[in-house]
Amino acid sequence: MTDLLLKNVRPLGGAAVDVLVQDGRISQLGANQQAPAGVAQEDGQGALLLPGLVEGHTHLDKTTWGDAWYVNNVGSALTDRIDNERQWRAKTGHDARTHAKALALAFLKEGATCIRTHVDVDTDAGLKHLEGVNAVRDELADRMRIQTVAFPQSGLLKRSGTAELLDQALASGADVLGGLDPSAIDRDPARSLDVLFDLANKHSKPVDIHLHEPGDLGAFSMDLILDRTEALGMQGKVTISHAFCLGALETPRLNGLLERLAHLRVGILTTAPASRPVPSVRACRDAGVTIFSGNDGVRDTWTPYGDPDLLMRARLVGLRNDFRRDSELAWALACVTGAAAKACGFTDYGLHVGARADLVLVDASCVAEAVAQHRPKTLVVAAGRVVARNGAAV
Amino acid sequence: MTDLLLKNVRPLGGAAVDVLVQDGRISQLGANQQAPAGVAQEDGQGALLLPGLVEGHTHLDKTTWGDAWYVNNVGSALTDRIDNERQWRAKTGHDARTHAKALALAFLKEGATCIRTHVDVDTDAGLKHLEGVNAVRDELADRMRIQTVAFPQSGLLKRSGTAELLDQALASGADVLGGLDPSAIDRDPARSLDVLFDLANKHSKPVDIHLHEPGDLGAFSMDLILDRTEALGMQGKVTISHAFCLGALETPRLNGLLERLAHLRVGILTTAPASRPVPSVRACRDAGVTIFSGNDGVRDTWTPYGDPDLLMRARLVGLRNDFRRDSELAWALACVTGAAAKACGFTDYGLHVGARADLVLVDASCVAEAVAQHRPKTLVVAAGRVVARNGAAV
Repeated sequence: MTDLLLKNVRPLGGAAVDVLVQDGRISQLGANQQAPAGVAQEDGQGALLLPGLVEGHTHLDKTTWGDAWYVNNVGSALTDRIDNERQWRAKTGHDARTHAKALALAFLKEGATCIRTHVDVDTDAGLKHLEGVNAVRDELADRMRIQTVAFPQSGLLKRSGTAELLDQALASGADVLGGLDPSAIDRDPARSLDVLFDLANKHSKPVDIHLHEPGDLGAFSMDLILDRTEALGMQGKVTISHAFCLGALETPRLNGLLERLAHLRVGILTTAPASRPVPSVRACRDAGVTIFSGNDGVRDTWTPYGDPDLLMRARLVGLRNDFRRDSELAWALACVTGAAAKACGFTDYGLHVGARADLVLVDASCVAEAVAQHRPKTLVVAAGRVVARNGAAV
Repeated sequence: MTDLLLKNVRPLGGAAVDVLVQDGRISQLGANQQAPAGVAQEDGQGALLLPGLVEGHTHLDKTTWGDAWYVNNVGSALTDRIDNERQWRAKTGHDARTHAKALALAFLKEGATCIRTHVDVDTDAGLKHLEGVNAVRDELADRMRIQTVAFPQSGLLKRSGTAELLDQALASGADVLGGLDPSAIDRDPARSLDVLFDLANKHSKPVDIHLHEPGDLGAFSMDLILDRTEALGMQGKVTISHAFCLGALETPRLNGLLERLAHLRVGILTTAPASRPVPSVRACRDAGVTIFSGNDGVRDTWTPYGDPDLLMRARLVGLRNDFRRDSELAWALACVTGAAAKACGFTDYGLHVGARADLVLVDASCVAEAVAQHRPKTLVVAAGRVVARNGAAV
């Protein structure tokens, strides 16, 4: 059932309207809509209406969601975490498909209808994790949109054979090509990025590069990424995730990079971590750079944190950026709604006629309250289907 | 009813025990306890048992909890926020007592059984807000412990007559004397601190000073505070709240201050804001400094954030300090339990025979899970009374 009349809801806190959904899309939006014969009706009771939430960067394949608690005693270097996880997966036989599905459904219950998930591809596991998550993507396609990113978590050049695996991954259904710290991990930034961009170009796929490199090193790698984006005409097809360097540069250097990012339409993903320098949401927006957000890992061997409720991520974006005004909290929401959809290329998105009917009702007076306070969701509609009601999956 | 047998609970995630409560205190704690005749029994079902949570720094008098959403369009300077609030209170006639009680009960429902609240004292409102919150403190005394801090939010020297009001506040029942930025706000740090410490000394009351001053300015003011703590023999009676400067000093200067703080038993309160330098929980603990946490404001004209669930605050402490290991998450919990009780002087606190029976059950396997993930509380017991069950007040 993908037809529905949703009565008395307030889009982004505006005046109350009714939303008519037909064939899984918004077909009418306005006062006093009537349900065609046989169409189910929901009373929104004046709730705040948000578009489906967008998880712009997570790792469905890594999660221990649904398992016993993973006791974390891992070292604090990036390579400690990478090596620990690869060994843990090999030892436990962790099944990416089962866990990815459990977490995807937890996201859906909390109103996330679009997800970009990075999936590890490495020479130990090959494409096993990716095949599992691709299967979940296809299985849940009637309810949610999941993009898979073939992600060389253990490095691209560092472990021989990885590029070939990524090539196969893109040929066999990964939606996006992932990358990782061409300087700090691969130790050969120019060659690493050449190999990566050649693969993306060969398969005509977008790129999403995890760039943890700090300060001037990160800025150096970022320029190399932007050079290749420009040379290959990949404007609008590249995301740089984390981009911590943008939080720790002198202003002229920062402004030069922001200008270039805007010009090449490269998106910036921030999880808004509290313990590191981060790109400023305000500075990116002011420069015309699309900045968006997501959890990164949820309950995995890397992190005990993460929450399928993306309004919590919006709250963390707000806290990290010291957003207190209602107008600023709307920017935090954009990071997990419209800006994320735009950056990831989820089309037909939003609260307008013709968009997919991905709708979230929140018992809140306005967007700011929904972001800053933990308010319950009363209804989640995904592609026109009611998938959760009052916090419980339907 | 302050007698109770709580069966099958796991203190801090340890082996399951039963807890016998008599006259509002823990009288037995171990395996196979029997309920004396007529004593009610609760089945903990193996839940994680935590001591009552401690809110170490909030402002019950400022909250709009229970009111319509406050649309924030306030300027971003500290003085903008101070002036806006004082004017807003005068204009709306905001009733501190009603709102403080509503928020205190929201805290209690989430397991907070001890609260230190700062209450504005200024020459516009006089002692009105403090009288309101003192009344709430007394009204709820059978269930929770609330400490009131007479707090010169608009400055001590800056507005003439404030010191006299603080003198009256301490004479008429405030538990603690508050202070605020002696350099940045009062512009005369030595005299400001002399007046403050003279008042505290006269009334034999502890002091809790909000020190937002950054870097070397904050360190300078901190040394002045420590000088007076030492001179007046107020070891163990002084808290410095926020102490942002400790997050932005060169290591030798930092270590010198930490050593002095430890020696004088001065506590450090951090709300662990994501957008400012903050004291490191690890560095404080390593130096023997008691560091603890709290919300600061909850849903007021200063901030749209804040959450009566102190496990959320512990999570923010963890995120700010990049705590990922289970052992580190236990430090985050300590910030809203034992360390906060110690710093604020809430005695008879903890999970031992003789302590007040302030008990929180969480549906979580361990402390780390309770901190890092949003897990439901199944029972809250305050001074031996069941006050909340499955998230609802009893």
